[in-house]
Amino acid sequence: MARFPMPDWLNTMPKPIILATDEERILYAILLSRLNVEQGTGGPFGAALFNLETGELIESAVNRVVPESCSVAHAEMCAFANAQERIERFTLMSLGSVGIYSSCEPCAMCSGAIPWAGVKKLVYAAHRSDAESVGFDEGDKADQWEEKLRARGIDVIGGLCQQEAADVFKLYATVGGTVYNG
Amino acid sequence: MARFPMPDWLNTMPKPIILATDEERILYAILLSRLNVEQGTGGPFGAALFNLETGELIESAVNRVVPESCSVAHAEMCAFANAQERIERFTLMSLGSVGIYSSCEPCAMCSGAIPWAGVKKLVYAAHRSDAESVGFDEGDKADQWEEKLRARGIDVIGGLCQQEAADVFKLYATVGGTVYNG
Repeated sequence: MARFPMPDWLNTMPKPIILATDEERILYAILLSRLNVEQGTGGPFGAALFNLETGELIESAVNRVVPESCSVAHAEMCAFANAQERIERFTLMSLGSVGIYSSCEPCAMCSGAIPWAGVKKLVYAAHRSDAESVGFDEGDKADQWEEKLRARGIDVIGGLCQQEAADVFKLYATVGGTVYNG
Repeated sequence: MARFPMPDWLNTMPKPIILATDEERILYAILLSRLNVEQGTGGPFGAALFNLETGELIESAVNRVVPESCSVAHAEMCAFANAQERIERFTLMSLGSVGIYSSCEPCAMCSGAIPWAGVKKLVYAAHRSDAESVGFDEGDKADQWEEKLRARGIDVIGGLCQQEAADVFKLYATVGGTVYNG
């Protein structure tokens, strides 16, 4: 069992998945967020790690805060920890160039975790305002946090397919999902 | 087994432990950091959760990044996740007023995690400059991050028994410990 167990529907998805573009990869992360809401298995957030050179999916994760009783279990954190556990390394750098694709702008915790995880790129879809519009709290991040990641050699693309991700928050509000840190 | 397994020496320490003052509690967290170095079971960081009213120790944790192959496994994160797993809640608020006592100023990830964890107080010993002096990276935090935690209703005391904690970093450097994110 992984450190952060994922739902059965995610564990049984066919593999391998190879996606060539940032847009395909972020849409995959958004799909995870949508399925997590529709299946009732956690909050409206998904994240995926891809090898930036080969396009191979390395790890998929969804928000598991409520089902796992764990405030740490944001999608990005689960992706990092579960991938590292599998490869038995504390950094993803040993896999080459790895990118984290997140359905939403990472919160203060997750953006702080990114430099430690060993990724070379962050792509996210929804903006913090989308998450906040349904009551989530994104925390207090460094000013110009994206520039600070870039200064560490981590490329950042934000707002890619933002509308598709924002729609998942609206769905979550419609189904009355728990807002666990508002 | 806990989500973030702790070393045997920590799991077998006698309980209960009840400590009345912030100074006793932070010295306990520093003791954990020192034992983690001396026993060779992780990085030079310790953290403990105490009930702020009764003084009872709720959870003890040490840095487990290298032995657990997990960039997330900072002492504070392990304390939060393991305590929440045990009580089967995603917030510590259900335990009443809980404080996190950390041997070092929390990094960007851990300080971002604090508001989600459900604690009412942060007490830390060493400053970021102490950790950086032996090569650790604390990340990019919000300006006036302590004030921002206080604005969220989380009391913050920093630099309590700073010298005792800084001495543990010196010990770690002396024994040639791994600096995993420098």
